[in-house]
Amino acid sequence: MDVFIEPIGKLINEFSKLPGVGKKTAQRYAYKIIGMSEGEARAFAESIINCKRKVRYCSVCGNFTEDDVCDICKRREKTSICVVKEPKDVIAMEKLHEFKGVYHVLHGVISPMDGIGPNDIRIKELLARVSGGEVGEVIMATNPDVEGEATAMYIAKLLKPLGVTVTRLAHGIPIGSELEYTDEVTLSRALSERKQI
Amino acid sequence: MDVFIEPIGKLINEFSKLPGVGKKTAQRYAYKIIGMSEGEARAFAESIINCKRKVRYCSVCGNFTEDDVCDICKRREKTSICVVKEPKDVIAMEKLHEFKGVYHVLHGVISPMDGIGPNDIRIKELLARVSGGEVGEVIMATNPDVEGEATAMYIAKLLKPLGVTVTRLAHGIPIGSELEYTDEVTLSRALSERKQI
Repeated sequence: MDVFIEPIGKLINEFSKLPGVGKKTAQRYAYKIIGMSEGEARAFAESIINCKRKVRYCSVCGNFTEDDVCDICKRREKTSICVVKEPKDVIAMEKLHEFKGVYHVLHGVISPMDGIGPNDIRIKELLARVSGGEVGEVIMATNPDVEGEATAMYIAKLLKPLGVTVTRLAHGIPIGSELEYTDEVTLSRALSERKQI
Repeated sequence: MDVFIEPIGKLINEFSKLPGVGKKTAQRYAYKIIGMSEGEARAFAESIINCKRKVRYCSVCGNFTEDDVCDICKRREKTSICVVKEPKDVIAMEKLHEFKGVYHVLHGVISPMDGIGPNDIRIKELLARVSGGEVGEVIMATNPDVEGEATAMYIAKLLKPLGVTVTRLAHGIPIGSELEYTDEVTLSRALSERKQI
């Protein structure tokens, strides 16, 4: 790094902290910043500080918000709750413009390998919301991996005594893919969950 | 973008301005920022502003510097000048730790297609430096593409009457590559510039 003058070296170092960014890419980003106008660079820097300062977690669902309670929790019907691992999963669901209920962000999944137990994620908060009595259905939308499945099963077990319907996103062959290239676990799942047509 | 709350949407927009960064990657970067501590985010933002504010061009060679004259121009012998297109080419050369002379950054190459003529890059400044009389050799290290070659030839023609040796980086087969996969132009160049061993 000694070939770079200090402010450039420092900026390259900061950019290298972003996911998937190596020294070479960080260097390209730094040159781009140097090539910007003073105003553009300032706007960039301010948007980082602003984002960090303004964004917090909704006190109800745990999603990103600027207020105490997020817009989704404020405006939408609370009869169905979609449970996801992270805020970015809310974005993925919202892009569909199909789900009209509210969310519950767990901020993680149960993973004994990483020392994450049921008390380390927002399960208690979910139980409290469902106990309110307004909720009719809870859709488990954690990822279809080992931890996501286990977490969904664990939570479902806790929710059922509360008299709520618990569903899980369907698993199967992705639309547009080919049978030949579908992995065995997915294919076997698609077979066992086949539907009459 | 309406699925993102405003400060996140803005930050994604800023990250999208970096070279080769699409919406998806910008989104990952934004989440990384949100996951940082307030201090880390502030350090990141400050390094952007600092870099933009402190870095300018050396009044002698045109390379990046924090002062009026860069460290290389201050300390090194001025008998040979390596002429490059951009500041990042200086970094590439410096990483070798072999060249002991100074640089001259053109900040572009002659490119009639893009409307860039000899007066749009730092050729006058180079001639002034060489006219000083101290310089013995000028190494043309512009890129081995059409514009780089033409610019090197153009500058060489102007420099020769000043009684200075003008050289060009060697072209040929890259070390470690295979003859079979070497493009024809490079191979033909390697043949015509073959050396006795």
